[in-house]
Amino acid sequence: MAAPVISPEIDGLIQLLSRLPGLGPRSARRAALHLLKKGPSAMEPLARALTEAAARIRPCSVCGNLDTADPCHICTDPRRDPATLCVVEEVADLWALERAAYKGRYHILGGVLSALDGIGPEDLDIGGLVDRAGAPEVTEVILAMNATVDGQTTAHYITDRLAESGVAITRLAHGVPVGGELDYLDDGTLTTALKARRPL
Amino acid sequence: MAAPVISPEIDGLIQLLSRLPGLGPRSARRAALHLLKKGPSAMEPLARALTEAAARIRPCSVCGNLDTADPCHICTDPRRDPATLCVVEEVADLWALERAAYKGRYHILGGVLSALDGIGPEDLDIGGLVDRAGAPEVTEVILAMNATVDGQTTAHYITDRLAESGVAITRLAHGVPVGGELDYLDDGTLTTALKARRPL
Repeated sequence: MAAPVISPEIDGLIQLLSRLPGLGPRSARRAALHLLKKGPSAMEPLARALTEAAARIRPCSVCGNLDTADPCHICTDPRRDPATLCVVEEVADLWALERAAYKGRYHILGGVLSALDGIGPEDLDIGGLVDRAGAPEVTEVILAMNATVDGQTTAHYITDRLAESGVAITRLAHGVPVGGELDYLDDGTLTTALKARRPL
Repeated sequence: MAAPVISPEIDGLIQLLSRLPGLGPRSARRAALHLLKKGPSAMEPLARALTEAAARIRPCSVCGNLDTADPCHICTDPRRDPATLCVVEEVADLWALERAAYKGRYHILGGVLSALDGIGPEDLDIGGLVDRAGAPEVTEVILAMNATVDGQTTAHYITDRLAESGVAITRLAHGVPVGGELDYLDDGTLTTALKARRPL
């Protein structure tokens, strides 16, 4: 219905933008109009950034991080502690842990086990993790999956798989978020935080 | 802080995406990751669409619509009624009216008068509208600005400017939105709808 009026060039741009997570059809139209009103000075840098990323960014064959180098800069950085492997679901989680000043290395699973979505161990990079955890320099594996049912199921599965490797297996602490108010917290978190209370 | 870990290519892409309306820093990261995970097959078409739009889309010198042709396809379409000009704020409003099956022509102001934002008549394409409304084939100007204070102020201003042109000046009807429930409607709309009641 909109086809005869919106030119195919604009319509194509809207269609592609609407595939981005967080942009529905309406906000994709808004984003496209914003770019069109700003003109080439807004569209050309984005086009260049996309072309460059498409050409140069690839997953690290060791940890799964996205980078221009393979192995990635984290895997090859000699200042990072090779004794600690932090296992995360996605690259976004790696970025989050970097903001938390973690100084070891990572292993990205590429998702979590999910019976509902039909994702089994063979769909995740668990074999690579078992291999890496068996290396002599690795002494600790931190399981930093999301605190969801699927995330915790995956953590249990990995704990079983690593049982014979002899590395220490730890997980992130659960508790009251820093800055959080008890009154607004869900009961599960509060119960966990109470059970895991620490001496001052 | 994130600079040493996220490669500059990814960071640049995130920065550019976060400038789009509707995408904050977090959703820009999500959108960038989505694109990076899909790989070149997702990024290259978007880069091409942007390059093409940057090169080919420009504002119509007659009505202000965005199109590859100038005058645009609406202005040059002989099937569209040249007697009716619909005045809208932005191209997005033109797209909305096209979905409402309007069959006349348009005039895009490029905004509304706003004392707060320092937007005066010289910042909008009101001169062009007065010229076009003076053409012999134009018999009606429909003011389709948003039903906001600024939109209605602009409508009044344009009505004054067109007073001597002799064209009929109309505005969109205000009232209960189709499918709307009275109980959820603001009082202003309900008062307007009651005053403007129509015989069945």
